[in-house]
Amino acid sequence: MKPSLPKGTRDFTPQQTLRRQYIFQTIQKVFVKYGFQPIETPAMESLSTLTGKYGEEGDQLLFKVLNNGDFLSKANAQALEARDSAALVSSISKRGLRYDLTVPFARFVVMNQNDLTFPFKRYQIQPVWRADRPQKGRYQEFYQCDVDVVGSDSLLFEAELTQIYDEVFTALQLPVVVKLNNRKILAGMAEAAGIGDRFVEMTMAIDKLDKIGVEGVKKELSSRGIDEQATEKIEQVLAVKELSELSAFFADSETGQKGIEELKTVFDLLSDVQLNNQMQFDVTLARGLNYYTGCIFEVKVDTAAHPDIVMGSIGGGGRYDDLTGVFGMKDMSGVGVSFGAERIYDVLEELNLYPETVAQNLKVVILTFDKVTFRYGFKILQQLRTAGIAAELYPEPTKMKKQMKYANGRDVPYTIVIGSQEMESGELSLKHMKSGEQEKLNIESIVDRLS
Amino acid sequence: MKPSLPKGTRDFTPQQTLRRQYIFQTIQKVFVKYGFQPIETPAMESLSTLTGKYGEEGDQLLFKVLNNGDFLSKANAQALEARDSAALVSSISKRGLRYDLTVPFARFVVMNQNDLTFPFKRYQIQPVWRADRPQKGRYQEFYQCDVDVVGSDSLLFEAELTQIYDEVFTALQLPVVVKLNNRKILAGMAEAAGIGDRFVEMTMAIDKLDKIGVEGVKKELSSRGIDEQATEKIEQVLAVKELSELSAFFADSETGQKGIEELKTVFDLLSDVQLNNQMQFDVTLARGLNYYTGCIFEVKVDTAAHPDIVMGSIGGGGRYDDLTGVFGMKDMSGVGVSFGAERIYDVLEELNLYPETVAQNLKVVILTFDKVTFRYGFKILQQLRTAGIAAELYPEPTKMKKQMKYANGRDVPYTIVIGSQEMESGELSLKHMKSGEQEKLNIESIVDRLS
Repeated sequence: MKPSLPKGTRDFTPQQTLRRQYIFQTIQKVFVKYGFQPIETPAMESLSTLTGKYGEEGDQLLFKVLNNGDFLSKANAQALEARDSAALVSSISKRGLRYDLTVPFARFVVMNQNDLTFPFKRYQIQPVWRADRPQKGRYQEFYQCDVDVVGSDSLLFEAELTQIYDEVFTALQLPVVVKLNNRKILAGMAEAAGIGDRFVEMTMAIDKLDKIGVEGVKKELSSRGIDEQATEKIEQVLAVKELSELSAFFADSETGQKGIEELKTVFDLLSDVQLNNQMQFDVTLARGLNYYTGCIFEVKVDTAAHPDIVMGSIGGGGRYDDLTGVFGMKDMSGVGVSFGAERIYDVLEELNLYPETVAQNLKVVILTFDKVTFRYGFKILQQLRTAGIAAELYPEPTKMKKQMKYANGRDVPYTIVIGSQEMESGELSLKHMKSGEQEKLNIESIVDRLS
Repeated sequence: MKPSLPKGTRDFTPQQTLRRQYIFQTIQKVFVKYGFQPIETPAMESLSTLTGKYGEEGDQLLFKVLNNGDFLSKANAQALEARDSAALVSSISKRGLRYDLTVPFARFVVMNQNDLTFPFKRYQIQPVWRADRPQKGRYQEFYQCDVDVVGSDSLLFEAELTQIYDEVFTALQLPVVVKLNNRKILAGMAEAAGIGDRFVEMTMAIDKLDKIGVEGVKKELSSRGIDEQATEKIEQVLAVKELSELSAFFADSETGQKGIEELKTVFDLLSDVQLNNQMQFDVTLARGLNYYTGCIFEVKVDTAAHPDIVMGSIGGGGRYDDLTGVFGMKDMSGVGVSFGAERIYDVLEELNLYPETVAQNLKVVILTFDKVTFRYGFKILQQLRTAGIAAELYPEPTKMKKQMKYANGRDVPYTIVIGSQEMESGELSLKHMKSGEQEKLNIESIVDRLS
């Protein structure tokens, strides 16, 4: 049989895996410095935990795991008779694959609340699964990389999450713009326009601004029956560039004022910090998902530095006042952001930003000519590894050409060739593969050189 | 709703996750030093890739993922009519969760053969899923940690895998015994006993030796119709302690002689190496799985060092002459071992072998009294983090008792308390939490101390 992979899934080769490890380790190191702790949750969750949390469309995209054994024996007979797939599912499948990391996190917090120290700061880097139609850059299995705090409404965390973005993308050498807004400012905008009750529709429309422009947003709002006076007010607010200009619009909106105040606190804290990337207030930032209630974030590649990169957001998040309410634990405010690891991977590749050392964790391969030098090479190998140097001995003293081909294939920076002469003198031939330069050195000098 | 987890699955708390990271990183570091490269494969494989690879019992234990959408529309009508779950499965599910890492690895090698450099040395640390009945220490989702070489029959790799075991368990401070045998020696045993054609049955019986003793093995062989002369010969061979004593039995078994020779080569290579753990030839080691064809390995906790530990093998593996044949790529010899990560986790916990630092990646929490000192604390925080120190500021200047409770809950080694006096003088109060000792130091000295 000719093997294949399911649509929308991928293998990762050593080079790809090393690059992904580089991204995740870079991010993880920053998380740890900021006091975040890792958790892991299982891939399979009860369907009752997942269903109804991602809207109707989300429910459609859940991967469901078939119950084991004679699953039909407990199947819904009526649904079976009617060949009704949707009605049958819950009786033949009780588990599903996790769709994101937020719902499992909320479940985790509720189930472990007595053992956790609040505010609880966690990060989580694990794959999720969605039955989306596979297409370029969209997979059915992909990693999410989330960092959240739950159990505090301090705006310190909004500042820190912004700093985390700054620090991670500085480490990855990718200049970005971090955009900030606040859902309360959007609520204020709706109130200022006299359509406080149409907040969700307004937000959904603004979320499309990038694609359809201001005129498109106005048209969409009109088509939903929102009058011209209101849409013009919204247009005016959307044109605001500075946080300080907003107050004038929000004289009658307490919520709007609160949103301004929150963002001011965050920017004020950040004024004490040395940042390498731009932090921008952006009143047009909406983040479609409607569970956010406070500050919202979005990260994009800085097009001033990289004008050719066409790429959506590579990170985003926000504050949600009631993270765990759906599982019965009330009044737990949470704030978190996530890193779009798959997109970050693609951008770093496009810009050639992976350090060369990422792919080269093997330092040297030893090549030998016969049984005697092979055996001697095995001893040399021990000395290298004892010194902590990642090293290999080609597994047999075969044709030198074949051994060299292997060393090239592994993209190794150095080889050591051992013939009978080298073995007698103890002066081994160290070859720098890129330059082709060769030197005769004893093993101590080689260890020094490669350490 | 009260949330719960599916049976046989687990959450990992920060402490557990950090300890798991410690185990995996320790193992991974050794793999890299030995020239192994990471790959990752998707959780979901085509059922056609998985089915038939793990025996009939294994097929029962595969988790199958329901096709999305109106899956009944393409269901096998006859099976549906007959309410035949087993016959229905393949028409409503085309994907399953991976059952181990070996079959995905073989598939990976076949699909990527043109891009790989052979011998291909890979490691892979990922979860697998099995619908086993959950019980203490047995989960439906658990990690495997495999390291394999494919494309070479050099016995160098048998030696290196033994070294890897030695080095990993040395780093984990867990003394072990690595047992080695060779399936060719078992074949020789069968030939010596005149039952070469009953090799698999003999091996299965010997595999139970630990549980049922020699008499039990003999009884089982008799019950399968193997005569007394043969079972006595087998008993004699099973009593052999030294490799050198075996030759006498294998005068007429070329395969047996080959097995001795292979093991001798491995032990001879290892004689050049400084090992910290015991390597033991064990003629009774059988490893039930019958795809092994050469050397086989098994690791157990050294009961001389830890007599109270009752635990099965914590690692094992072997050589298989035809790893990829099932996917149409012939003559690829492979050898590999795996680490029983879940059991290793339990043993380290039982023996209290986790370094204290594993749980303490947060170094210090800053506690403040009011808005002004909070703001000053935020600046101090930046200086600590800039120096690479994992640090936190308690997110609000609330009651000191509450802040201290948090610091204790995080098990943090140090706190810094900042009142107005400390702020004025710049001499901050650094408290060592375990001893309770406090010192007044400026921020530069604190950075030095904590770095």
